[in-house]
Amino acid sequence: MSRLDSFIRRLQAQRACLDHAAELIGEVDGVVLELGLGNGRTYDHLRTLFPGREIYVCERQVAAHPDCVPPAERLILGDMRDTLPAAGARLGGRVALAHLDAGSGDAEANCALAAALTPLLLPLLQKGAVLVSDPTIENPGLAALPLPDGVRPGRYHLYRRISPVRS
Amino acid sequence: MSRLDSFIRRLQAQRACLDHAAELIGEVDGVVLELGLGNGRTYDHLRTLFPGREIYVCERQVAAHPDCVPPAERLILGDMRDTLPAAGARLGGRVALAHLDAGSGDAEANCALAAALTPLLLPLLQKGAVLVSDPTIENPGLAALPLPDGVRPGRYHLYRRISPVRS
Repeated sequence: MSRLDSFIRRLQAQRACLDHAAELIGEVDGVVLELGLGNGRTYDHLRTLFPGREIYVCERQVAAHPDCVPPAERLILGDMRDTLPAAGARLGGRVALAHLDAGSGDAEANCALAAALTPLLLPLLQKGAVLVSDPTIENPGLAALPLPDGVRPGRYHLYRRISPVRS
Repeated sequence: MSRLDSFIRRLQAQRACLDHAAELIGEVDGVVLELGLGNGRTYDHLRTLFPGREIYVCERQVAAHPDCVPPAERLILGDMRDTLPAAGARLGGRVALAHLDAGSGDAEANCALAAALTPLLLPLLQKGAVLVSDPTIENPGLAALPLPDGVRPGRYHLYRRISPVRS
C-alpha cells in the first residue's frame, strides 16, 4: 500500500468515525471540541455534522483556510497543555464530542501528546460524551467503542466517557 | 459537502487517474516525471505503480517525508520554469507519464502555473505519453482523455500527447 493509499484510508476512517460519533451523541447534550484546527478541513466537516451545536477549537497557531477559522469567541489559542485546564470554567462537563488529531506524522509523539492531554480533557466531557481520536488512548475514564463498518481496528479510535470504578 | 469530503474525493480521483494512466502507458516506453514532490505521497504511489521505470521529480525545495525523497540523480531542484527547459538534454522526448499537481489551494493560480509549464513540458513527452493533471490544461499538443469510472469531470484531468495539426 502506498502512502497515498494509506492517507486516503486514514481520512475515510476519520470521517466515518466522526459521522458515527454524531449518531452516538444524538441524545447527549453539549458542545463539540476540536483539539487541533490544522487546515480546518475536519472543523468544516464538524460544522456540517453539527449545525445546531457550538464548536470550540483549540489551536496553538491558526494556519487554516480563512473559510475554516472559527469565530474568535470559540477559538482557544495556545498550547493545549495550558489552555485545556483553563477552559474548565467555560467548558467543564459541557463537551458532548471531542476530536483529537493534533499530531504530527510521528505516531509515537502523537500517542505521548494524547496521553498528556487526556487527563486535562476528561473534566470537560459530559457524561456519555464521545472522544474520536487518531492516537490510541488508554485511560480508566474512557471505554473503547466499536468502530463503524469499513474502519480497520487501530486506524482511528472511538471512546465513550465513563465513570471510572473507584478502587 | 464539507472540505473533508471534497479533499477525500480529490485524492481518490488523483489515485484513480494515476492508476488508469499506468494502464494507458503500458505500451509506451519512457520514464515518469512528477512535477512537484510536496509531501511525497504521490511519488510513493508512482513508485508502487512503476517499479520498472525511472521516476524523476521536479521540486523547488524538498519538504517530503524522508522515505519519499527520490535519489539525488533523479531530483530536479529549482523553479520548474527554469528547470524544465534545462531538463531537455536529459529527458527530451523520454517521458511516458507526467503528473502535475504543483499548486497551492488557489485554483486560478494553479491553472496559470499549468499554462506556463505546459509548453516547457511538451518537448519532454514521448509520443503517446499521458499527462495527469490537477488543473485543466488547454493546449493543441494535448487531447483530453476520458476519466476512469467514478471520477467526476473536472475533478482531475488526463491528457494524451498528440502531434498538433500545423495550420
